[in-house]
Amino acid sequence: MTTSNPTAILLVSCPDQRGIVAALSSFIARHDGNIIALDQYVDVEERAFFARMEWELAGFSIPLEEFAERFSAVADPMRVSWTLHRSDKRLRMAVLVSRQTHCLYDVLARHESGEWPADIALVLSNHEDHRSLVERHGLPFHCIPVTAATKADAEARQIALLREAGVDFIVLARYMQILSPAFVQAFPLQILNIHHSFLPAFAGANPYRAAHERGVKIVGATAHYVTETLDEGPIVEQDVIRVSHRQGVEDLVRLGRDLEKIVLSRAIYWHLHHRILVYKNRTVVFS
Amino acid sequence: MTTSNPTAILLVSCPDQRGIVAALSSFIARHDGNIIALDQYVDVEERAFFARMEWELAGFSIPLEEFAERFSAVADPMRVSWTLHRSDKRLRMAVLVSRQTHCLYDVLARHESGEWPADIALVLSNHEDHRSLVERHGLPFHCIPVTAATKADAEARQIALLREAGVDFIVLARYMQILSPAFVQAFPLQILNIHHSFLPAFAGANPYRAAHERGVKIVGATAHYVTETLDEGPIVEQDVIRVSHRQGVEDLVRLGRDLEKIVLSRAIYWHLHHRILVYKNRTVVFS
Amino acid sequence: MTTSNPTAILLVSCPDQRGIVAALSSFIARHDGNIIALDQYVDVEERAFFARMEWELAGFSIPLEEFAERFSAVADPMRVSWTLHRSDKRLRMAVLVSRQTHCLYDVLARHESGEWPADIALVLSNHEDHRSLVERHGLPFHCIPVTAATKADAEARQIALLREAGVDFIVLARYMQILSPAFVQAFPLQILNIHHSFLPAFAGANPYRAAHERGVKIVGATAHYVTETLDEGPIVEQDVIRVSHRQGVEDLVRLGRDLEKIVLSRAIYWHLHHRILVYKNRTVVFS
Amino acid sequence: MTTSNPTAILLVSCPDQRGIVAALSSFIARHDGNIIALDQYVDVEERAFFARMEWELAGFSIPLEEFAERFSAVADPMRVSWTLHRSDKRLRMAVLVSRQTHCLYDVLARHESGEWPADIALVLSNHEDHRSLVERHGLPFHCIPVTAATKADAEARQIALLREAGVDFIVLARYMQILSPAFVQAFPLQILNIHHSFLPAFAGANPYRAAHERGVKIVGATAHYVTETLDEGPIVEQDVIRVSHRQGVEDLVRLGRDLEKIVLSRAIYWHLHHRILVYKNRTVVFS
Repeated sequence: MTTSNPTAILLVSCPDQRGIVAALSSFIARHDGNIIALDQYVDVEERAFFARMEWELAGFSIPLEEFAERFSAVADPMRVSWTLHRSDKRLRMAVLVSRQTHCLYDVLARHESGEWPADIALVLSNHEDHRSLVERHGLPFHCIPVTAATKADAEARQIALLREAGVDFIVLARYMQILSPAFVQAFPLQILNIHHSFLPAFAGANPYRAAHERGVKIVGATAHYVTETLDEGPIVEQDVIRVSHRQGVEDLVRLGRDLEKIVLSRAIYWHLHHRILVYKNRTVVFS
Repeated sequence: MTTSNPTAILLVSCPDQRGIVAALSSFIARHDGNIIALDQYVDVEERAFFARMEWELAGFSIPLEEFAERFSAVADPMRVSWTLHRSDKRLRMAVLVSRQTHCLYDVLARHESGEWPADIALVLSNHEDHRSLVERHGLPFHCIPVTAATKADAEARQIALLREAGVDFIVLARYMQILSPAFVQAFPLQILNIHHSFLPAFAGANPYRAAHERGVKIVGATAHYVTETLDEGPIVEQDVIRVSHRQGVEDLVRLGRDLEKIVLSRAIYWHLHHRILVYKNRTVVFS
Repeated sequence: MTTSNPTAILLVSCPDQRGIVAALSSFIARHDGNIIALDQYVDVEERAFFARMEWELAGFSIPLEEFAERFSAVADPMRVSWTLHRSDKRLRMAVLVSRQTHCLYDVLARHESGEWPADIALVLSNHEDHRSLVERHGLPFHCIPVTAATKADAEARQIALLREAGVDFIVLARYMQILSPAFVQAFPLQILNIHHSFLPAFAGANPYRAAHERGVKIVGATAHYVTETLDEGPIVEQDVIRVSHRQGVEDLVRLGRDLEKIVLSRAIYWHLHHRILVYKNRTVVFS
Repeated sequence: MTTSNPTAILLVSCPDQRGIVAALSSFIARHDGNIIALDQYVDVEERAFFARMEWELAGFSIPLEEFAERFSAVADPMRVSWTLHRSDKRLRMAVLVSRQTHCLYDVLARHESGEWPADIALVLSNHEDHRSLVERHGLPFHCIPVTAATKADAEARQIALLREAGVDFIVLARYMQILSPAFVQAFPLQILNIHHSFLPAFAGANPYRAAHERGVKIVGATAHYVTETLDEGPIVEQDVIRVSHRQGVEDLVRLGRDLEKIVLSRAIYWHLHHRILVYKNRTVVFS
């Protein structure tokens, strides 16, 4: 349920403890914040508390630049980790892509039709193929070829371009190069990847061929944050489609394309609306 | 996420207003209640607030028999409607069934294997067919035939039996008689039905035949609370299965049976765990 | 399972009768056709037989221009209705669209990336909005406004344009005008529409609002051939997505967009590959 | 689409070759067999042909005891492997179970309500727990405890019991002992297992815990034939259910139970109706 009025969004995690919801919600209420969404989750096993609170900025009596100072009186004693976001701040995203275009087309279309509160700052590819597709959308396109020999240099150039463009987060829209740990560390939990299998099944290369050979009756796609270990980052979203013996590898590839673009776009939507918390390599998604 | 310790469960609905979450959660915290689950939902369009709070009874400083009196100081000014439940109170359920057995088998199996915090007080049918099936589970079975001429009498006997047995809620496990308004009013929002279609499509009789004739590619089942208008009560749960031209009516019936029993059991589970709120003929399910 | 070699595709329907498969497959085999796919279906209730046979053109000893004459010796005695298609003949499609763009973007992207053996001959709209979107894909765009007063004229112009362009079939990619019977009859079973609900539930206008008000737990989309009765043509494909009380009407619209474009594209794929037979307002889809 | 008349069912696999469908269907037609279902599939990559033909026995001019001799004239030159089945021959199944009861309850209920053309010859368990549950269905129950030390003996006793009972196929309804290669070889492709994960993800023990730890957003169940390598036999059916961070391991177990029993029952249904062919550790399921 959405509102068109600007809101503040607070993401919180801390040890579970008595009174934590009361403390958080009272703080907002006391300063005249009208909470329009409060999602919370207690992981009983881990004794961990997570919440997402969203309230209207109109009427809220604390200027956001003073929020940290004022909120510390509540947060510090309860050992609360938190981040604060504004719904009216458009994030700047970068898109990395290789040869496959289905996710790129879908991301560009959603961006252009205003589906997301975000601006695409630039598109990076290791191939020239899609320059005209990107540029006709009026977006900057940079081609940085990557080979084993040039990878370190290429990544340095990529990182520089991303920094210059003030990028908040990065979407790997079927980008087929493995990012180095250094690249990943430069953008912690800010890189979303789409993997074309139902992870952890069929990690790595050629998942549709592997799925076909195993004879599975359902194939999937997985959106996850990129961490230093390939295909093992925290999963944000997955979806599947039923297949049968009739579908050869090419059919799985074709059917999978639709899964991939939908799953990736859902993950992007949640990221942009600050609905995802990560802990212990898992995600809490307040969808 | 569950706990095996006894808990109190508070279901709340009221006009949306500033400070409502803070008021509710502070009340529990102030009396040393350890909240293990808090789900809330604001219907922005209707300006309505709904919540489910669950906290451990151990340590909670208000005896539940005094809860109403003490809570009224919070609830009354905010015009809060509420119900309070204990996780350690087993509900008493009745099962009504006609000739089809798949839901009955499934309900009996779940009951016997301890899946639900509930006791089956009795099984009522308008046919004798399933007496031995029920009785070998050690449960009372009553056959009350229903004809157009005897319907009022039959319902009076049914209601008397249900009252005597101290029944908290009623599951229509493919019971094919239409309940009169008087019967429904005797158990408001305490009767769960399973309808063998994806409502509102194919309400009424023979939904699988109607689905086949319309040539749909997906069939469904719907669990809903019974109200005075047939097949129009608030929907609790639905699920679907893909079909094709290859499935004739009998195949739809066969595939649908699995849907029906699963969908019905999910609705029962949520009802038993006090996870459902009803408003404006819709449900809020904190699943 | 696909082959890149050109094939012939024969769609057949007739009364069910002994020896029909043998007669059909023997005819192809006798003329050295290598069958790579044979799907058949018997509707036992209707005593009707349907089949799709696909064989490689290479080696087939009958020139296709003589097929009708030669095949009549088999087909006529068995009262077989049939159509013959070549996999290497690209169909010419037209796209009709109003203001919503998600299906249009998706269709243009699939076309441009070569996913379909089809050419978009033209895009028609009753609004000017999407001219630049279409034209940057290098495709003709025609705006023909439609009002109650001008509808007959507008349709006449549309039909003329479609005829001139040699269009084989028409995709209504969220085209919000109701086509007259005359228009529909001009393109029998050649118009595919996407309806934004799980038909027959929520036919007509504003299905997402209606779905929200009914409180359904699953929403859907339906691709169907257009017939003279609104939203009642033979269903080709449907799919659904789970929702909850948390999704307001706008959320349903957003989630539904993805369903609509996927469901429509699957129907287009099957149409283009001659995998759909229609009878009694239902479809046989050899998917 | 089903018929209640007795039918013959022929399962065929052979190298793909011109005229194979014609040869098979002509053979049946020539002997006055009325084909009510013909499913065929060509694996283009493997150049392999598979088919299932079902025709009414009434009117078929070859006594089935002479079928092999007569059919060899067609089958031998085309190197056809085949099996022939009668729809009116009820298979004899055995059920093996350990402590979990949900699949057992479901199998017993389907058997008792006549859903399957099969008789349960006996139920075997390594525990005494479910004797009364089985015996009240009027079925033989045998408890054969299994320890590492006694496993060879125990399996010998199990095999002897299964042979004596004339068992055609075996259902592992959450039987938690690993079968030895010798046991598996005694019943090749006649043992169906249900594994409580979406294989190949989470093979082995405790898949729900592993799924929870990996943070997947969907969990599944897999029915497969048992081969000598644990959890690697040919997959017959899979299904999935969406979960979120809110579901702890116990919730996954609970939700998974419903998946397991449904997926297992679909695989049993197809096995009983001779709809499954196995090759290269994959299945062709003519569902």
